[in-house]
Amino acid sequence: MSAPTAITLDLERRARLGIEEAVLCQGKTPGQVADILLRADEAGRSLLLTRLGEGQREALPAALAARIDYEALSRTGFYGTVTAPAGAARVAIVSAGTSDQPVSREAARTLAYHGHAAAEIGDVGVAGLWRLMARIDEIRAFPIVIVAAGMDAALPSVVGGLVPGLVIAVPTSTGYGIADGGTTAMRAMLASCAPGVTVVNIDNGYGAACAALRALPLLAPEG
Amino acid sequence: MSAPTAITLDLERRARLGIEEAVLCQGKTPGQVADILLRADEAGRSLLLTRLGEGQREALPAALAARIDYEALSRTGFYGTVTAPAGAARVAIVSAGTSDQPVSREAARTLAYHGHAAAEIGDVGVAGLWRLMARIDEIRAFPIVIVAAGMDAALPSVVGGLVPGLVIAVPTSTGYGIADGGTTAMRAMLASCAPGVTVVNIDNGYGAACAALRALPLLAPEG
Amino acid sequence: MSAPTAITLDLERRARLGIEEAVLCQGKTPGQVADILLRADEAGRSLLLTRLGEGQREALPAALAARIDYEALSRTGFYGTVTAPAGAARVAIVSAGTSDQPVSREAARTLAYHGHAAAEIGDVGVAGLWRLMARIDEIRAFPIVIVAAGMDAALPSVVGGLVPGLVIAVPTSTGYGIADGGTTAMRAMLASCAPGVTVVNIDNGYGAACAALRALPLLAPEG
Amino acid sequence: MSAPTAITLDLERRARLGIEEAVLCQGKTPGQVADILLRADEAGRSLLLTRLGEGQREALPAALAARIDYEALSRTGFYGTVTAPAGAARVAIVSAGTSDQPVSREAARTLAYHGHAAAEIGDVGVAGLWRLMARIDEIRAFPIVIVAAGMDAALPSVVGGLVPGLVIAVPTSTGYGIADGGTTAMRAMLASCAPGVTVVNIDNGYGAACAALRALPLLAPEG
Amino acid sequence: MSAPTAITLDLERRARLGIEEAVLCQGKTPGQVADILLRADEAGRSLLLTRLGEGQREALPAALAARIDYEALSRTGFYGTVTAPAGAARVAIVSAGTSDQPVSREAARTLAYHGHAAAEIGDVGVAGLWRLMARIDEIRAFPIVIVAAGMDAALPSVVGGLVPGLVIAVPTSTGYGIADGGTTAMRAMLASCAPGVTVVNIDNGYGAACAALRALPLLAPEG
Amino acid sequence: MSAPTAITLDLERRARLGIEEAVLCQGKTPGQVADILLRADEAGRSLLLTRLGEGQREALPAALAARIDYEALSRTGFYGTVTAPAGAARVAIVSAGTSDQPVSREAARTLAYHGHAAAEIGDVGVAGLWRLMARIDEIRAFPIVIVAAGMDAALPSVVGGLVPGLVIAVPTSTGYGIADGGTTAMRAMLASCAPGVTVVNIDNGYGAACAALRALPLLAPEG
Amino acid sequence: MSAPTAITLDLERRARLGIEEAVLCQGKTPGQVADILLRADEAGRSLLLTRLGEGQREALPAALAARIDYEALSRTGFYGTVTAPAGAARVAIVSAGTSDQPVSREAARTLAYHGHAAAEIGDVGVAGLWRLMARIDEIRAFPIVIVAAGMDAALPSVVGGLVPGLVIAVPTSTGYGIADGGTTAMRAMLASCAPGVTVVNIDNGYGAACAALRALPLLAPEG
Amino acid sequence: MSAPTAITLDLERRARLGIEEAVLCQGKTPGQVADILLRADEAGRSLLLTRLGEGQREALPAALAARIDYEALSRTGFYGTVTAPAGAARVAIVSAGTSDQPVSREAARTLAYHGHAAAEIGDVGVAGLWRLMARIDEIRAFPIVIVAAGMDAALPSVVGGLVPGLVIAVPTSTGYGIADGGTTAMRAMLASCAPGVTVVNIDNGYGAACAALRALPLLAPEG
Repeated sequence: MSAPTAITLDLERRARLGIEEAVLCQGKTPGQVADILLRADEAGRSLLLTRLGEGQREALPAALAARIDYEALSRTGFYGTVTAPAGAARVAIVSAGTSDQPVSREAARTLAYHGHAAAEIGDVGVAGLWRLMARIDEIRAFPIVIVAAGMDAALPSVVGGLVPGLVIAVPTSTGYGIADGGTTAMRAMLASCAPGVTVVNIDNGYGAACAALRALPLLAPEG
Repeated sequence: MSAPTAITLDLERRARLGIEEAVLCQGKTPGQVADILLRADEAGRSLLLTRLGEGQREALPAALAARIDYEALSRTGFYGTVTAPAGAARVAIVSAGTSDQPVSREAARTLAYHGHAAAEIGDVGVAGLWRLMARIDEIRAFPIVIVAAGMDAALPSVVGGLVPGLVIAVPTSTGYGIADGGTTAMRAMLASCAPGVTVVNIDNGYGAACAALRALPLLAPEG
Repeated sequence: MSAPTAITLDLERRARLGIEEAVLCQGKTPGQVADILLRADEAGRSLLLTRLGEGQREALPAALAARIDYEALSRTGFYGTVTAPAGAARVAIVSAGTSDQPVSREAARTLAYHGHAAAEIGDVGVAGLWRLMARIDEIRAFPIVIVAAGMDAALPSVVGGLVPGLVIAVPTSTGYGIADGGTTAMRAMLASCAPGVTVVNIDNGYGAACAALRALPLLAPEG
Repeated sequence: MSAPTAITLDLERRARLGIEEAVLCQGKTPGQVADILLRADEAGRSLLLTRLGEGQREALPAALAARIDYEALSRTGFYGTVTAPAGAARVAIVSAGTSDQPVSREAARTLAYHGHAAAEIGDVGVAGLWRLMARIDEIRAFPIVIVAAGMDAALPSVVGGLVPGLVIAVPTSTGYGIADGGTTAMRAMLASCAPGVTVVNIDNGYGAACAALRALPLLAPEG
Repeated sequence: MSAPTAITLDLERRARLGIEEAVLCQGKTPGQVADILLRADEAGRSLLLTRLGEGQREALPAALAARIDYEALSRTGFYGTVTAPAGAARVAIVSAGTSDQPVSREAARTLAYHGHAAAEIGDVGVAGLWRLMARIDEIRAFPIVIVAAGMDAALPSVVGGLVPGLVIAVPTSTGYGIADGGTTAMRAMLASCAPGVTVVNIDNGYGAACAALRALPLLAPEG
Repeated sequence: MSAPTAITLDLERRARLGIEEAVLCQGKTPGQVADILLRADEAGRSLLLTRLGEGQREALPAALAARIDYEALSRTGFYGTVTAPAGAARVAIVSAGTSDQPVSREAARTLAYHGHAAAEIGDVGVAGLWRLMARIDEIRAFPIVIVAAGMDAALPSVVGGLVPGLVIAVPTSTGYGIADGGTTAMRAMLASCAPGVTVVNIDNGYGAACAALRALPLLAPEG
Repeated sequence: MSAPTAITLDLERRARLGIEEAVLCQGKTPGQVADILLRADEAGRSLLLTRLGEGQREALPAALAARIDYEALSRTGFYGTVTAPAGAARVAIVSAGTSDQPVSREAARTLAYHGHAAAEIGDVGVAGLWRLMARIDEIRAFPIVIVAAGMDAALPSVVGGLVPGLVIAVPTSTGYGIADGGTTAMRAMLASCAPGVTVVNIDNGYGAACAALRALPLLAPEG
Repeated sequence: MSAPTAITLDLERRARLGIEEAVLCQGKTPGQVADILLRADEAGRSLLLTRLGEGQREALPAALAARIDYEALSRTGFYGTVTAPAGAARVAIVSAGTSDQPVSREAARTLAYHGHAAAEIGDVGVAGLWRLMARIDEIRAFPIVIVAAGMDAALPSVVGGLVPGLVIAVPTSTGYGIADGGTTAMRAMLASCAPGVTVVNIDNGYGAACAALRALPLLAPEG
């Protein structure tokens, strides 16, 4: 049997796609995560860590853990030097309820890691339509709108019918029973009656932000 | 092998439940349907026929077919003497788009067969929210609201958040791909973020009307 | 990145729907739950808490936890001042077996929170039909009957064929294997051979009660 | 490429199992069916044909078709000499509605082919429980009870709770939407709350009869 | 809200079906289980307890726990006075591998509780066909054969093709990935190419034994 | 029963979203389609017709059919006056094989209807990677890339790893067996290992184009 | 909109993989198939056509159709000059029943197209185990064994436990109900208790043969 | 009830198949595992243990645990005397990312246990195609290539299109949401657009290695 394969980071990804290599920590041992961090150091790179549980972080060598800018709700970490976002937010992240906030935050953190501000707008689920209507003009002003919702995921259909910009829907695993870990939300989003709503994987706030990162460099400047 | 079982109609159903025996014609041979009609004649009863295809109806003996008050969109037939509905409608049947009308109509026909008027309100899908908003006050005035929608079925969640009365959601098999013959709509309705929305089987306008028929005798008179 | 979104309660819900805002605690951190309770205090409102685990409750600040009227079987809490139900019960909550009682109780507690008494009738699963038959006349007298059952969910079909009032079926996650967390029960209820049986999400005793809350104000007074 | 494989009938099956080789005709070309019939002739055997569509039968060579004792509702054929059943029926075949009769009949025909009478008892679905109760004493007298039902398949649970003998449940593809071609019925039967209900494949009246054929030789004689 | 419903045991079940009430302990609190045991005492009855975890048993009041004849592999308990089986075994319980033994044992224990001996024959999975062939004559001698297998569940098809008696297949949750908690085994059993194989729920050794209990009183005596 | 609801077109959609009302013709009767066309005439509007089968088109009144600019492969029709696209294509539509072309074409036609040119690049499935590599520089130059693929849908992952712009993946129903009508492709796209790939419903070339239409007005001009 | 993409055949595939480009005809129009045939002519190549329905073939221009060596059971066609297989068969194709023969034949034809003989061994389903045992020594002699089976797919597990060579299992869509178009067979094969059984898509005789084509050049010569 | 069945190891398996009996430890109690090890000792055999969790190993009697050559990442153990692999690797094990390494390693360990070296090549997922391209010539040189990938499993399709040898794809449970425990990867592999890719169960590195073990003795010697 050959020696264990060394981990090969895709460090040219930013040059190729404008998106940094990110590390999905879920399912990795602390040893594997530590190994990846050390390799980033060797390459002089920073890293975005996603789905890094509190327990996982605490199991890392203290010197490594200390260098992670960690946000608990989204379970994201910035490793290394990251520049704070500058400029006005061009992405709105709209979510239905409190339970959708970890996903909303993961998207916001991913954008921040890449230098982009975002506006998080929460608690606008359609069961209380007035909450959405109170903020819809604000939302309509953004060229890119990420919508996170679970359960029946009616929110992106309503938003998609009112907002002209790019709509990226993220199903969340909120709910129980037939909500089925976000599967029903995902299906409803894909079957949306609003035209041109696009969808990413369940709870994939990172992926929704990456889709926005693909579009952001293409946008005409405001003004 | 014993002789074939004779068909036993559940003719006491109205006495027990206030709902007449109905005959689901789909999957029955013309001979079986004709046999059931003749038994209803023997018992001096009328019958509600559902999912009676045009072809099935034409394959019946002409004398029987002629006595069916048939409505093609809903594929429903009234066999025998049926009294026209009287009084103001107390049930609204709200639907998202043109493709949901067969289900909406099946519900309306089932109510009519039992003597109740209904108000069909179509084309109010949430992708064009203004269409629903233009009629929401009218809808809110009904004590019972049936909502038929397919695809993502966002409509009953929005209606359920705005209407105080009983909301009975019927998923329809409108759409393709992940709409999956109405399964996504059904799942989304069951996972609705609006409280107290109840659901019946896919395309089951008959069942939604029966739920309304259970509630109608209980209602306080208007006034 | 914008500051975290403040939680926006839908406090007008009772005015709009006759149903109070309820808080699904499952999946929320103690901090999020505490934050919601404090906001209710600020607004001078009471709250219904659902799926509040014992552990979650114990992790709340003691002063907040002490003000929760908690019922362990249903994992429900009343926060703030709640008036006890008055008047005779107009809702029966029928359940198949012991394992369905948490759902039955959640429905009863939701009704109680809104001021309505309910009659819980348990252990009447159809495998021992005599148990149901012994109480069926009692059940038939209620205008609204909630039926909670898991596994094959044959109970609502039998009840639906014998009871003329509104029947709201709640699938429960009782059972194992193909019972599949309540999915089989939910499917069987939606495919019920009894006409007009309506269905809510798995284990959603809260939702069944909300459906009843939609109907209760419409009912003609007894007598 | 080798010459096409000749068809090898499992003609020793009756000696081994007490069950004759049967031919599932669905999905076979008329040429394949004819070939099988000719081989049975060569071997001096009779055959039970299942799921033989009218069209398939008409496409057979006339001389072969003429020797098939065909029953259209069950789509079964007896090819060759078959002795009529003798003795009292020891198997009851109970079914919920008219649409379940093809399956009930397939079971009865399979039993008849093997020399056993059966009593078909139809239209006793639980939505009209009185119909079942009117015949339950009769049903309880049979040592073996096959129960065919679709949709929610509540019938075998009620029967299984009232009948002491062997209960073999056959889900049928009756119904639409979430009935899902019999999948919901099958799932509900497997999750039955009545103890010891056994299940065969959807629409598999043949298989249910075969299970009975396994038990019949073991039974103590009546007396 | 009414007082909590008292638990109603179905104590006439043995008279009706020849099968005692059994208590599925999974999902019940120790308090609920204890309550059921006390009621059995009041009624002067014994009880079969299934899916009683070690932890659950230890959480019972010591006086009650001490009176349970517990078998850890099958997680079954006999509460109260149970007579040991007498007479030769007429049921074989055949299983594919070590991981299927808990289910095999649950079936054996259920039969023992009702006074019937059974022969457990393990480790005869078809991947090593010689193991099955070495014992097939022994197995063929039983009038009733329960077959427990997981993963692909090929065993009951091979057994069903070789054994003339009643074959009751129990899928087990053995395996991983596409084995899917026993769903693949269950599906394969229902689609068995061997005629007349009947199936019960996943891991339901109790149910398979109950099916045998339905047949055992009907059998002609040996000899 | 109220008079049938008139069809309400969402004619303000273009103003709101920049996307015209489109009519999904599948599942509509020729009468319903004709009615919609006449209403567009009354409103002085053109319409995009999708999933308009040849048979459906031929069943329309000849005068209406003659005014439809029909494209058979995509089953799309332009009704009324439509201006030809002008300017260089800014959207590439990449597809894996011949069977994906109807979806690719539907996307191209939808863009054309709205005045945008597109470049269709077909037969670049990854099983013959050189075909994709030969054109990847060309594809990388587009700010928006729609990728249509069925079966395993590996193409969008490879494209998504090489192309920096917005990637909109459309699963197609190409393939058989486990391809499952496009479900496997859809699932694979949502689980893509390439960051920021977004997904629309199966065979929804229209929806992919609409997502592009949301982004196109936002793009900085080329130069 | 750009001009329609020309079809790009992957004609280097044989050089790269040892497997010729094959054309899946299902879902293609006769015009598309004809176009592909003409391109093969231009390139001076032959083609393997799979899933070419009789109707599709008849709709081709007569001159093209005449040059197809068509086999109806497998729906395969050889277009152009194909050399007959030479040498002894090194692949056995084992199938369970008559209904699996189209898949068995598709595999045999694919091998023949590439110059390899195969031995088709049919009707050895495990329900009549003696049929398999009678031929197992013959089968064991082949280095590569393709096994086609539907329903419960027990055959490849038994074969896989007895045969030392490479085992490639092809699920077939034989059966009904829970057989589910081959899904149950596919799942059972993937969960096989026999070690090292590999699986391809449902009804994919072509794919199974391609797997064999990957192995054949690697084999040591016989003798 | 009979005495518990003794465990019967399939010790002739190597003679029959060239593959040793392996013990799937997941789901077995430490007592059951210990019992199996002792039996192997009695038979003078070694054993391959798979899915042996750290906790399980530590719960074994120390004397037994000490004789296990354990590898934590793959959770495999060699019990007894195992000869180290000799000769050049003829199997490549290619994997997409770090999270796929446990499966890759399980395959490598299974091969090593049988005396075969393997080359593990990791981190070549297609999202960074250059990583795969950098090593493709190396991979192409192996006659057998195992490919482990999760999520969308695009890797085996790309490899299958570039590599002429036998390709055995193992889906891994890497990913979340719609990745669905490896189901999406498994489906995509079965629907692969590359011809002749074969598939084993999710996370079944052992099974993939067994497939290779079936082919290895057949290969012509290198050189």
